[in-house]
This record gives sequence, C-alpha cells and structure tokens, in this order.
Amino acid sequence: MKAICNLLGIILLLSPVSLLSQEPVKVNAKRLEASILDLGKIGIDDKGTQRVAFSDADIQGREFVIKLMKNAGLEVYIDFAGNIIGKRPGKDNSLPTIAFGSHIDTVPNGGNYDGCVGSLAAIELINILNENKIVTNHPLEVIIFSNEEGGVMGSRAISGELPQEALSVVNSTGYSMGAGIKRLGGDPDRLNEVVRSGKNLLAFLELHIEQGGNLDQEGIDIGIVEGIVGLNWWDVTFSGFANHAGTTPMNNRKDALLAAAKFIQATNESALSLAGRQVATVGRISAYPGAPNVIPGQVVLSLEIRDLSTAVIQQLFNIIKEKAAVIAEESGVKIEFEALSTTGKPALTDPEIQEIIEASAKELELSYMYMPSGAGHDAQDMAIITPTAMIFIPSKAGISHSPQEFSSAADIANGANVLLSTILKLDAPK
Amino acid sequence: MKAICNLLGIILLLSPVSLLSQEPVKVNAKRLEASILDLGKIGIDDKGTQRVAFSDADIQGREFVIKLMKNAGLEVYIDFAGNIIGKRPGKDNSLPTIAFGSHIDTVPNGGNYDGCVGSLAAIELINILNENKIVTNHPLEVIIFSNEEGGVMGSRAISGELPQEALSVVNSTGYSMGAGIKRLGGDPDRLNEVVRSGKNLLAFLELHIEQGGNLDQEGIDIGIVEGIVGLNWWDVTFSGFANHAGTTPMNNRKDALLAAAKFIQATNESALSLAGRQVATVGRISAYPGAPNVIPGQVVLSLEIRDLSTAVIQQLFNIIKEKAAVIAEESGVKIEFEALSTTGKPALTDPEIQEIIEASAKELELSYMYMPSGAGHDAQDMAIITPTAMIFIPSKAGISHSPQEFSSAADIANGANVLLSTILKLDAPK
Repeated sequence: MKAICNLLGIILLLSPVSLLSQEPVKVNAKRLEASILDLGKIGIDDKGTQRVAFSDADIQGREFVIKLMKNAGLEVYIDFAGNIIGKRPGKDNSLPTIAFGSHIDTVPNGGNYDGCVGSLAAIELINILNENKIVTNHPLEVIIFSNEEGGVMGSRAISGELPQEALSVVNSTGYSMGAGIKRLGGDPDRLNEVVRSGKNLLAFLELHIEQGGNLDQEGIDIGIVEGIVGLNWWDVTFSGFANHAGTTPMNNRKDALLAAAKFIQATNESALSLAGRQVATVGRISAYPGAPNVIPGQVVLSLEIRDLSTAVIQQLFNIIKEKAAVIAEESGVKIEFEALSTTGKPALTDPEIQEIIEASAKELELSYMYMPSGAGHDAQDMAIITPTAMIFIPSKAGISHSPQEFSSAADIANGANVLLSTILKLDAPK
Repeated sequence: MKAICNLLGIILLLSPVSLLSQEPVKVNAKRLEASILDLGKIGIDDKGTQRVAFSDADIQGREFVIKLMKNAGLEVYIDFAGNIIGKRPGKDNSLPTIAFGSHIDTVPNGGNYDGCVGSLAAIELINILNENKIVTNHPLEVIIFSNEEGGVMGSRAISGELPQEALSVVNSTGYSMGAGIKRLGGDPDRLNEVVRSGKNLLAFLELHIEQGGNLDQEGIDIGIVEGIVGLNWWDVTFSGFANHAGTTPMNNRKDALLAAAKFIQATNESALSLAGRQVATVGRISAYPGAPNVIPGQVVLSLEIRDLSTAVIQQLFNIIKEKAAVIAEESGVKIEFEALSTTGKPALTDPEIQEIIEASAKELELSYMYMPSGAGHDAQDMAIITPTAMIFIPSKAGISHSPQEFSSAADIANGANVLLSTILKLDAPK
C-alpha cells in the first residue's frame, strides 16, 4: 500500500482540488475540539469563561492562539488595533487574499464556543492544508479580531468604522479601548494605518456558532447567513404623575408603569403582526420613584428592533409608535422616543459565496438553511470592504454568552469542513 | 357695650358649651396658619422640608412645638418613645382623657402640612379653650407622635405594636430607631413603659390633610374617615429565560418582562372590576439582566393592595392570582408570589364619633363626605387601644409628600373647628 499512498500524495500535491471533488479534504474533528477546550481552560472560573478583552486571560488566550498559528507555519503579526493576523502565501501572491477568522475574547461569564469555533477552525484548516500539502492559488489570511464582544473593535478598525471617541470607552476590566489596544500590542494613535482597502481581498469568511436555537431545533447542520441584521435602539420615556398608592383612586391615576406595560405588550404584538423574522425587544426598564406604595410617575425603558432590512425596522417602529400614541391618549401618560446612536445598519452577505457554501454543504451531505444572523459579528464590518459570508453551526438549545454554551465536535467539524470547501472553491481558477 | 361684653364673658365662663350651641367657638385661622408656616421654616431647603425623624431639624421642630405647648399652659413631657405629650387637666380628672394630635416629622423633600396641620391645630385648640376660659370635664391631652413617617413609631410604641427588631431600622438620617429615640429624649430600653391601656382614654382624634384628591376635586370641606385601609405587599417574581434579543425569534421567547407587563395590566383591570374603593398598585419593578439586547429572564415587581376590608383585599388578590396563572400558562413564564411582612390590618374608626363629627360639620355649615383613608396614620395604632376618629381636610390637587403640598388657611380652620366641636361634644355630659 505504501507505494500507492505515496503516489496519491504526489497527485494530491499536483492538483488538490480537482482530484478531490469526489472525496473532500476534511478537518481533524478531534484536534479541533481539543484546541477549543484547551483555549477554554484559560480564564475559566466557577461562573464561566472570563476572557474579556484586555484582561490577563485574554492576553494569555492570544498567546495560546499565536503559538498555534506559528506552529501552523503562518507569518504572524499584531496590527495596530490588536488584531492577530496570520498569513500563508499562495501560488500567486499578486492575487487578492482570501481572509477568514473570528475572535477569542469572551463576554463576562462567557462560554467556550462563541468566536473560538471560527478562530480555531481557521487555524485547523491551515494545518489540514499543510498536512495535505495543499497550496492555494490565492494567499490566505487568518484574522483573530481584537475585542469583538466590546464593540467589534478590531474589525471596525479594519473597515475604518472605529470612531475616535470609542477609545475612551472602558470595559469590565477597567481598561479603556485606548489603553487596552496598547496592552494587546497595538497603538491607538496609528489606527488609521489599520484601515484596509478591499482591493487586496477576495473575500472574508467567518464560521460561528448560531447563538440562537433555529438550527438546533430544526436539526439542521449548517446555517447559510443571508446577512447580519441591522439594529436600532430607542429610549422610551413615559411621563405620568407619581402619587400616593393608598389615597389615589384607581380611576384617577396617571400610572406611567401601567402605560409602559401596555406599550411592552403592543411592541410584542406589533413585531408578531408582520411576516418575516424581525424582532423587537424591551430589555431594560426603570420605574420612578420605584417604591411599592407610590404610583410610578416616570418609566424609562429600552426598545430594540432588528431586521435584515432597514425599511422593515422603520415600518415596525412606525406601527409601535402609532400604538404608543393611542396608549398615551387613553392613559394621559406622555410617551417620548429618543433614538440612540447605538444603531447598526444591516450587512448583507455575498450571494455568490452563499451559493458556494450551499454547494459545499450539499457535497458534504449536510443539511442547511438560509437564515439571518440576529447577533452582530466581525463579518458585519468586513462586509463593508470585501465580499463576505458567514457559516453557522448549531448552538445547543440556542444558549450563548453563558458557560452553558455548547456545540458538538461533529457540528464544529461540519462547519469547519464547509468553510474549508468554500475557501477551496473560491480559490479554484474560474 | 363694655358692660355687656363683660357680662357675656362671665356667662361663657359659667357654661361654655350649652350657651354656645348657636354660635360655636372657633379657632384663630390666621394664628393657626402662621404657626404652620413658622414650623415649615425649620429644615427647609430648595428641595422641600427635610425634617426627617431624628434629624437636627426634627429636634428643632420639636423644640418649637414644645415651646408653643408650654405657652398654651400644657404640662409637657417626652415619653420613652420620644412622643411629646401635653396635658391639660379637666374639671374631673378621674374621667378618661380625650387625646388628639398628630406628628411633625416629614418625609425627605416633604411639605408643610402632612402631620403639622393636626399637630398645630391641637395646640391652637388649647389656646382657644384658654382664651375662652373653657375648662372641659375630661382631661385633655395633645400628643405629637415621634417618627410617624418612618413607620408610625411613636403610636406603635403606645399601642404596644412596635417590635424590638424595628429598633435597628436606620432611616435616611443614618440613625437607627434605637439611637434616634435617644436623640429625641426617649429610652429604647423602657418602651414597655410607654404602652398605654385604653382604660384612661375616652377617645383619640386626629385632624389630617387627605393626601389624596377626593375632597379637592369634589369641592368638599370635611372628610369623615371611616377607617384606615389595610395593606398587603407581595414580591412577585417572573422566571422566564434570558436570551439573545437578536437571535431568538419572537415566537420562541420566554420573556419575563412581557409576562410582567400582562400582569401589571391584569392587576389594574382586576382592581377596577370590583365595586368599592380598593386599590392595587405595582410601584417597583426590576428586569434582569436589564440590557437592551437581552430578553429579560427574570422580573421582580411589587404588588400592593389596600382596602378597608381584609376580605376585599383577599378577594382581589385571588382574582389577580387567577389571572397570573393564565399568563404563566400562556407565556411559559413561572410566576411566584411572596407575601411580605409589611402588612397593615385595616383600622376602623368609631361610628359614634363619626356621627359627632358629622353633626359638628353640619353645625358649622360645612360640606362633608365619608371616606376611607388610603394612607396610614398614627390614628391606626391608637384605634387598637381606644375609640378613634379622623377628620380630613382637602389637599390641593391631592399632592402630598412633596413641597407642593398645600391646604388653605380656611380649610385648615374648618378642620380645626370640627375637631374642637367634636371634642366639646364628646366632653359634654351624656
């Protein structure tokens, strides 16, 4: 058998993709999972994984990843925004680069999979290319973005969308973004040099856990992301009249919390009244003065609407606003909306790459569905400068940002294999 | 004219009440209002009156009142609970005492009328009796209760209802009740000596501002209080499932805040569904984790129900609980009720004294209505040991516990005159 194997090795080396169309190259599922679990040991405590950007654990996690990248033969450097970049030359380095990756920082009390799956799959994929002696036509680039959870910092820096004022924002580690970038080996004064043109990029691909329950519930292997939803936030203020809960008859109240309760219901009903996958959420609420024996005079709550279409967000907001006007009229409680700057435009993914992902999933005999990403990702900013796509794998019970976050080794390998196949198809001469 | 006046004076001295049945003795409205406004200067700042029990301003206010009481010829002492007691002997000191009064401590950012009207009217009434040389058959007693706003402390001590553990409760001044009682000249270790038997009391009467808008809205002079409503408090906990607001479809949420919103509406509708004056209020709410982009997994809110009848409170609570069960069933959110110890039993006032108040109002040609007191008062505890009654006067726009609190000099005088007339009628031999 040895001679045949050697011969096969030579053939693979000569023309890896065409010959493998019947039997795709696949990642090492066990090694990939092991690397995810190893990374997960860094920063763990009894409440979850504490690898918040700029923390000591984040820096240790980055060192772990840099070592893996160097072991995979990548040329590694840290850009001025703290992104870890690993380059692998192609056959023709005048061709634009195919980039892929994700992030390894976590939320406080986070889990092992959000960001890490895409990051470590990207490195595993380089290992597999190495082991299969595959050299792509295009140069490849693995990007481990800095501080995704604290405002997609690294990818916004690359797309030129990181505003100067963001540098003063302090996260739970106590470091500002500016100070944090220095900790990561970057330089907050040279962020303009991080901004990249799309000219040198063929595409950006990100593999990620879904962070929702759709794939898990439907028993589907792969989500082909149609786009990352845009989101708008408002503060909604209800002004009634605070009064003694004992002496003010029921029919003589201007109860701001009662009006807010009607509004919360109306928001839910409005979101459900439209076809489509738009979501509207009231997640934060404060009632003033906030005593059991005082009718609330003021309530402030948050309203968030997300959809792939800006027009649908506006349409849903208009419906909610109309219902709010009726509630205000009937209750004598004034309702005011303040649009917040925390607004993300929808980012659509590239339809051609979506089709390539679909073809890859079919080839690998994996089930798939098209879906929006309800969560924000680094891919959102990369989509500004280059054709971008995302591949989702199931999150168990849809749980994310929690130590209970889980994706199986098989699901992770499926996603990594689709990513690999998609890259090779993108790389193939047209 | 002089001889006739002197003669009239002698006749008044001989038989004050019977001769005055056609022309009742009346308080000095101007002097009464002036004393209220003078007291109001003590502890005032740009946010309101800050005469919180145990504060320096409270102690200054008490000194002001003690001086007025001594000037009115009262024998003044401070009991071990810090209550200020002023005694005026009657013709027959073996008869039980007629007691009346209120409190002069305020809430933070309080006003000039809550408690002060009843306290200073009680002293004014002694002055008027003096000026008219009226000596009552029964001994009289003016009581200025200590720390009403911080839990009807002084009256609870008198009725024996002040639990030992209350002494460690700290109010906004930073003093515990125990330390505060010492500051007022009392002795927290001798509170058992403050407890009074009803045997030596004929009745307790309290004049007070309504603290609600009923009298003001209806244009009625006098409220005859049928009783002080009881109140029950619950903490209501809604347990759903916190999840990503972007990735969790609308139809796949266990939104604790949406269930709470439905509960708040159901509470309001339930209270309105019964005839009567019961009130139900949700005044405090917290949603967790409380971020705009996370579906709330848990909500805790307060439920308060008040009514003159314990049975009605229970009936309304049962209705609310049934509706909560339906909401829980439909939303998949668990709803749990925890009854809190902050529970006041309804305190009914004495029907015979109510009738005397009514007769007094008629005699003084004042309009009146029977009504519950939605707020708690010292009278509530006094009702445990002796027949008790309360007289309400209008609060402008129903505003209370606020620097905007206001009652006119005319309304205050009306209330004081009804109080005086009621005392004299109670005092008259049967």
